[in-house]
Amino acid sequence: MRNYSDKEISDAELKDILEQAMHAPTTGNMQLYSVVVTRDPKMKERLAPAHFNQPSVEKAAVLLTVCADTRRFGRWCEVSGANPGFDNFQGFLYALCDAMILAQQIVTVAEMKGLGTCYLGTVMFNAPQIAEILELPERVVPVACITMGWPEGESPVSERIPVEGFMHEEVYRPESDSRIIDIYRVKDDFPANARFVEDNEKESLAQVFTDVRYPRAMNEEFSKIYHDFIRKQGFRF
Amino acid sequence: MRNYSDKEISDAELKDILEQAMHAPTTGNMQLYSVVVTRDPKMKERLAPAHFNQPSVEKAAVLLTVCADTRRFGRWCEVSGANPGFDNFQGFLYALCDAMILAQQIVTVAEMKGLGTCYLGTVMFNAPQIAEILELPERVVPVACITMGWPEGESPVSERIPVEGFMHEEVYRPESDSRIIDIYRVKDDFPANARFVEDNEKESLAQVFTDVRYPRAMNEEFSKIYHDFIRKQGFRF
Repeated sequence: MRNYSDKEISDAELKDILEQAMHAPTTGNMQLYSVVVTRDPKMKERLAPAHFNQPSVEKAAVLLTVCADTRRFGRWCEVSGANPGFDNFQGFLYALCDAMILAQQIVTVAEMKGLGTCYLGTVMFNAPQIAEILELPERVVPVACITMGWPEGESPVSERIPVEGFMHEEVYRPESDSRIIDIYRVKDDFPANARFVEDNEKESLAQVFTDVRYPRAMNEEFSKIYHDFIRKQGFRF
Repeated sequence: MRNYSDKEISDAELKDILEQAMHAPTTGNMQLYSVVVTRDPKMKERLAPAHFNQPSVEKAAVLLTVCADTRRFGRWCEVSGANPGFDNFQGFLYALCDAMILAQQIVTVAEMKGLGTCYLGTVMFNAPQIAEILELPERVVPVACITMGWPEGESPVSERIPVEGFMHEEVYRPESDSRIIDIYRVKDDFPANARFVEDNEKESLAQVFTDVRYPRAMNEEFSKIYHDFIRKQGFRF
């Protein structure tokens, strides 16, 4: 959902969502995550370019930046006379998984209350800028960004490939090319997708993904930026 | 939930869970994930050592290994005359996030049906062995493993730090050490945790985490194994 009304989300409502969502599973019950809440219009304005100025950033009542965070837990270990070892790739992965599970639980709880939400994939591209604006310290890395607000109008339903397209019994059996074409037919035939192909003057929907939305050069550039950034934030590997 | 009855989960029930869960958000609606379903007792037996022989692996009706997968989508691009560029760190991250969001949605849908579930963190340690047993091809990496079955008895409720302990308004403000101690008091005071400290002959709960459950040497060893494995599976960075 990218269209939101002007109605606010109260502190109590937001806290209630986080309170319920935090019962989602976490690695060893360590809760290796933080959530930075953005409501201030000035902060939204500062964050907007890092999210490629998607209008929903300024329109949503609240923006939640969910971070992989081994800093707080690590500090608790230190003040408790223990020597934490989470400043490595596994530490980052524990925290990334904890943060993604929490993010999806926030989305579920919020939507069950009638709120609308949307993930912003840009958080994985412009993590260094976001970290600077939100003043994230070492061993805290943004991994999910969620816009949240009261929905205005209906959200379009996205097409999905069928369960048989991604489920494998006992072992992974790579499909034949003709089976792949069958699995993705639902996308190729989806009316809104046909328009993307036309508008972008491409020959297939797949070319919209590879040439317009997620081109190799962009993926490779942001791969380097994010990989370097994780290390800069203190995860050594 | 780690205790399961002998009751089966039917194919129709499992398919229904995946069918509902797949409506969770995914990066650009690419569904960069696969799910390998393990029911065969012989396959469970082969997987058990990779999960450090946790009894729930053989006891659960079903074991789901959720994989970050850019292979299938990439192959669809190729057969559609497009040139995919997802064999890099961003490609892995898109797929990892898609897989974690799907995993948590599977957990939510399954638990709403009365099933019990448990994540096995071991999937991040022994990914190479799991990939070999499940015959995972290039650009498919296991990231979440979920045991699922009908629960037997009650699952203990885990303590959590309060929302104020991980929520930050507008910018991240690192806490003072005394505030950190306050935030984690709920863990230090939790009765079951006091027993862990005693049983392991440690001075604090934090030392159980750093010396017994997640020691630095183990985190560092598995960091190298997993980081190398992602690259071996064809993600170049």
